[in-house]
Amino acid sequence: MRIPCLAFLAAVAAALAFVAPLAAAQAGGAANKVVLQVSDSDPAKWNLALNNARNIQTDLGEKNVEIEIVAYGPGIGMLKLDSPVASRLDEAIASGVKVAACENTMRGQKLARADMLPNLEYVPAGVTEIMKKQQQGWSYIRP
Amino acid sequence: MRIPCLAFLAAVAAALAFVAPLAAAQAGGAANKVVLQVSDSDPAKWNLALNNARNIQTDLGEKNVEIEIVAYGPGIGMLKLDSPVASRLDEAIASGVKVAACENTMRGQKLARADMLPNLEYVPAGVTEIMKKQQQGWSYIRP
Amino acid sequence: MRIPCLAFLAAVAAALAFVAPLAAAQAGGAANKVVLQVSDSDPAKWNLALNNARNIQTDLGEKNVEIEIVAYGPGIGMLKLDSPVASRLDEAIASGVKVAACENTMRGQKLARADMLPNLEYVPAGVTEIMKKQQQGWSYIRP
Repeated sequence: MRIPCLAFLAAVAAALAFVAPLAAAQAGGAANKVVLQVSDSDPAKWNLALNNARNIQTDLGEKNVEIEIVAYGPGIGMLKLDSPVASRLDEAIASGVKVAACENTMRGQKLARADMLPNLEYVPAGVTEIMKKQQQGWSYIRP
Repeated sequence: MRIPCLAFLAAVAAALAFVAPLAAAQAGGAANKVVLQVSDSDPAKWNLALNNARNIQTDLGEKNVEIEIVAYGPGIGMLKLDSPVASRLDEAIASGVKVAACENTMRGQKLARADMLPNLEYVPAGVTEIMKKQQQGWSYIRP
Repeated sequence: MRIPCLAFLAAVAAALAFVAPLAAAQAGGAANKVVLQVSDSDPAKWNLALNNARNIQTDLGEKNVEIEIVAYGPGIGMLKLDSPVASRLDEAIASGVKVAACENTMRGQKLARADMLPNLEYVPAGVTEIMKKQQQGWSYIRP
């Protein structure tokens, strides 16, 4: 009588061990992850997004949060070589923030990678990237 | 001894079969679903929302994604008969995008359904619609 | 033979009782909770956010929804003593809406609590507050 009971408890424990992290991963879990959208052509918004990223790092600790800024549509100007926030972007990337440019937008505006700042990530579609991150439990901030 | 053990394994399997899709449904699951908010009176934003919808369809495949555009507040003009994006909306709706008008906003602006483009959905409150979709695991994009 | 079987069914029930509310809490659950972001210096946006809050309350019932408005960055003006929407904020707070000011922004703009409207909540960083709420299953609206 005792063997199946023990086996059963072990199996329930195994089931819980399987389900709990699954739920945690889907809902964001312990790690802090946030995607910041930049889709305005307004440099004030670009600075606000960079302020947001820095404040999140200060508040939670750089090591405790993953931040990705995704620029698309009219926001792509933030990532061009002549961007007024180029040096702030350098600092953000050096501190661990990922910055992604939308290749759909680049194609539409005839921008090549040579027209863009260094150290960027490239994603096929900025909007799909933001959508996928949310599906993976990332928070979403649209400054 | 073996019967309870088998029964128990079957029950654990049943429990997992019940819990896993529940978690998937609540967190968005396999299907791609996204609600796009339009709450600005700016036609550039209306075009951006339509670009976003089309790019998501291109990137993921029309059949693999559910898209709903919700217009409310100052964004309701996007859906009026004289909307500058009327023909693009027609195309979007024909491709499977749902486009919803906020009846709260319509009441506030004294708009009847006769003042609106054809083939729209109507929701009592645009903002609650967006909230409910997020509760159901849809991603949220605010262009 | 029957004892382990019963014990096993009880344990599966216990496992489900543990996992189901966990998943519900992480994905938003039955309760309606929404965080509204105000990060523009535009009084029209402040009124829109207040309209959104009121419409959500009307649509779902005041008792059935938790609403928090978080103002940060250029949106902090909404919560200053001279705010053009001060009386509407009073009404919103009286109806149960929480309104939170970002202390990071206040420090940057040299604002003290004496410069702000009464009955506000204060959060160290508005953007982190919005992020945390999303992690806890709240919906997010950026008017």
